[in-house]
Amino acid sequence: MSLTLNCDLGESFGSWKMGMDEAVMPHIHQANIACGFHAGDAIIMQSTLKLAKEHGVTVGAHPAYPDLQGFGRRSMKCSRTEIIAYIQYQVSAIEGMAKNAGMIVDYVKPHGALYNDMMAQDEVRDAVMEAVSSHHSKPALVLQATPEHDQHLAEAEKYGLKLYFEAFADRCYDDDGKLLSRAKAGAVHTKEKMIAQVKQLCEQGTITTVSGKTLTLQVDTLCVHGDNDAGIQAISEIRALVDA
Amino acid sequence: MSLTLNCDLGESFGSWKMGMDEAVMPHIHQANIACGFHAGDAIIMQSTLKLAKEHGVTVGAHPAYPDLQGFGRRSMKCSRTEIIAYIQYQVSAIEGMAKNAGMIVDYVKPHGALYNDMMAQDEVRDAVMEAVSSHHSKPALVLQATPEHDQHLAEAEKYGLKLYFEAFADRCYDDDGKLLSRAKAGAVHTKEKMIAQVKQLCEQGTITTVSGKTLTLQVDTLCVHGDNDAGIQAISEIRALVDA
Amino acid sequence: MSLTLNCDLGESFGSWKMGMDEAVMPHIHQANIACGFHAGDAIIMQSTLKLAKEHGVTVGAHPAYPDLQGFGRRSMKCSRTEIIAYIQYQVSAIEGMAKNAGMIVDYVKPHGALYNDMMAQDEVRDAVMEAVSSHHSKPALVLQATPEHDQHLAEAEKYGLKLYFEAFADRCYDDDGKLLSRAKAGAVHTKEKMIAQVKQLCEQGTITTVSGKTLTLQVDTLCVHGDNDAGIQAISEIRALVDA
Amino acid sequence: MSLTLNCDLGESFGSWKMGMDEAVMPHIHQANIACGFHAGDAIIMQSTLKLAKEHGVTVGAHPAYPDLQGFGRRSMKCSRTEIIAYIQYQVSAIEGMAKNAGMIVDYVKPHGALYNDMMAQDEVRDAVMEAVSSHHSKPALVLQATPEHDQHLAEAEKYGLKLYFEAFADRCYDDDGKLLSRAKAGAVHTKEKMIAQVKQLCEQGTITTVSGKTLTLQVDTLCVHGDNDAGIQAISEIRALVDA
Repeated sequence: MSLTLNCDLGESFGSWKMGMDEAVMPHIHQANIACGFHAGDAIIMQSTLKLAKEHGVTVGAHPAYPDLQGFGRRSMKCSRTEIIAYIQYQVSAIEGMAKNAGMIVDYVKPHGALYNDMMAQDEVRDAVMEAVSSHHSKPALVLQATPEHDQHLAEAEKYGLKLYFEAFADRCYDDDGKLLSRAKAGAVHTKEKMIAQVKQLCEQGTITTVSGKTLTLQVDTLCVHGDNDAGIQAISEIRALVDA
Repeated sequence: MSLTLNCDLGESFGSWKMGMDEAVMPHIHQANIACGFHAGDAIIMQSTLKLAKEHGVTVGAHPAYPDLQGFGRRSMKCSRTEIIAYIQYQVSAIEGMAKNAGMIVDYVKPHGALYNDMMAQDEVRDAVMEAVSSHHSKPALVLQATPEHDQHLAEAEKYGLKLYFEAFADRCYDDDGKLLSRAKAGAVHTKEKMIAQVKQLCEQGTITTVSGKTLTLQVDTLCVHGDNDAGIQAISEIRALVDA
Repeated sequence: MSLTLNCDLGESFGSWKMGMDEAVMPHIHQANIACGFHAGDAIIMQSTLKLAKEHGVTVGAHPAYPDLQGFGRRSMKCSRTEIIAYIQYQVSAIEGMAKNAGMIVDYVKPHGALYNDMMAQDEVRDAVMEAVSSHHSKPALVLQATPEHDQHLAEAEKYGLKLYFEAFADRCYDDDGKLLSRAKAGAVHTKEKMIAQVKQLCEQGTITTVSGKTLTLQVDTLCVHGDNDAGIQAISEIRALVDA
Repeated sequence: MSLTLNCDLGESFGSWKMGMDEAVMPHIHQANIACGFHAGDAIIMQSTLKLAKEHGVTVGAHPAYPDLQGFGRRSMKCSRTEIIAYIQYQVSAIEGMAKNAGMIVDYVKPHGALYNDMMAQDEVRDAVMEAVSSHHSKPALVLQATPEHDQHLAEAEKYGLKLYFEAFADRCYDDDGKLLSRAKAGAVHTKEKMIAQVKQLCEQGTITTVSGKTLTLQVDTLCVHGDNDAGIQAISEIRALVDA
């Protein structure tokens, strides 16, 4: 299995810095760029696009619920109409700025609570699929790789929508193929377990769940995080693994 | 002189209504649609675009300073970088949503304080010109028609930028070709004076200033306002005049 | 039973008007004033306080989730800490401005989705109770009058919190004493049914549910709405009833 | 001259961190706490108040123009009414939360562009003075110590307003007693010059301007900044100086 690395970037806002975009960018294939609803602003979007271009990194839109204060991490009871309009507004904004920089937006990856709601609620996922598939430039959509892989492919096919499936390098999975709740011990892997999980995924296309069960996951891309020097180091090791 | 009518529309926000978009749209040629910074939101942008399409009305982006509470009417000391990024973000957002509706964004008309600052300050106008001319789809820019017409054309030529010049149907002009301050008596015309001003502009290409001086203005489009039934009626009469 | 009338006011924002505050204020006892999170801003809060003072109307804080675009009507998954901090911030803001106008804030009535979540979810209600009871000026809290009246009183007692129970003049109740969903026919009363409901509540302390069942409700205050001339007229008739 | 140290704190927002509040707090006398318009939110205000209380630090409100994206550093053309309402809203919010923590708000120090506009424009300063003096709890107002000291005192006296005058430890002054523009070389002192400036101010009540002129300044409090370890170290040395 040939995997790419994707990372959430451009999540600073105004005078506030977040993340280590310059350090992460050289190691990844895909940058999920915040569009101003949960993080990012017009200036940060421009500079993040520029940085991605310098490193030949593919760009994706990273739309969210309109919740700057909560960083898009709080579920909001938005209507189908709202979800569609919010996604298309954000994708349009980043896409126009990307074109101004001579770039295209290849895919859409919902952020935070919108991502979680999309994976957990059929009607939210359906709204997201309509939003992305009816956007004129036809970007792909990133979903989490789960055992519902075939069902999600069938849903997307109805919309003529291309999907990328992502797995998480640093998160422990439960037996249903969901991420183990962060509230539980062992939810976030140590570096050793993370490297082992990536290796297993690359070589065998499986992950080992919290109870020791082996689960097959169809994965296109790995989500990585680089918030500190240790994270950057881990990303560079993961990159070496997926390149091997 | 053949004139079009343009109007600021899509200025509702969330649960708050503003303007009489449905009543105005049948009478105008160009709709300046708010992009979410001073008014409008993703849902209102979509419905305003749809309404414009139904009436065959050309669409322009109506970007503003980021000031919802002040409706974009308060001058903000933004840097050149900020002005450029804010305009391109807003134009991109409305343009992507327009494309999703099978429409294009023909021009950019800055809103409120950004418009006033653009007309009054060379460096703001230069930033606006760079923003619009470096936007990939090359929209036109709306400036106020003034005696500085030739200078503004020369400035735009350097950027390869197309300009539309607009006059105001309902505002009295001072002898410098500027709008008489709203603080002064007679700043806003009665309906009779407004009709007379439009007629004179259509037939002779001139306006009569507050002191009675005759001023030649090169005008492409007339800005009209329709906030109440009387305003709508006035617009329909102005439309009849420019069509004649 | 002696009932007061309360109404949500001060829900304009910036340049956007909402409601008919001047027309409603003469008829009500209590004004629930928006605090800037779902509606209202510092200037509108000041003018609404002034208007309440002129009419001798008691003032309550009307805090909401931080969601201007959604008018506080969308449930947001906020933590206990967030709910407490958001309520105390908003109550503090309106209270300080009230003191500047020589007034006090008598009570807190959560708005929209926060109100609904408070009534539906024990942990949200507990957070709201802690927020209000630990606010230095010890305002009362408005809850919906339901058959859970005694349970809610017991909960409040633990916090040393005074409760006001409110009923809705214009809404039909289901057999559980909850408001009939707006999605169902007959959810909002005609004026005749509204007047009859208020009369029955004043005289007998009961309401008749959608299925014809008689339900006893302990009610302190009636929530009324005055968004148009007919609403204002209805409020004045309800006022005459509760005064009788 | 006995000087206190004040510092802008509580300037994080949502998920974004700014400043080193825990490290700064032990060294200062007065914490200027952001109120949510340029930085800070209800949760951060609560935790900053708590931190101030633990260190026995006096608390001031740090209100700003409503410009989160610009961190309150961009001048906005606000009306007198807006300035007054915005200040009283912010002071009320922090004051209510302070009372809930058993604390009081001793003073108001405008932030960023509002501070600069207050010092540069008589009408802005007059609006700020009215806002603070008409706030029920009668906090003091922090102005910059300048040669206009007596004029400012006279202005404040008309409002019955107490003033604190502040100087900047790390900034070079021009011959008019204004801060040398950051655009100019030497605008921000090296640590050595900063320490020397503080020493001179403590011992002689004067500062030496950029051209070498000696200027007498009536100063109550020194503004210090602690954004990194060197800044914290400098603050602790300044504290030793003013304590000596």
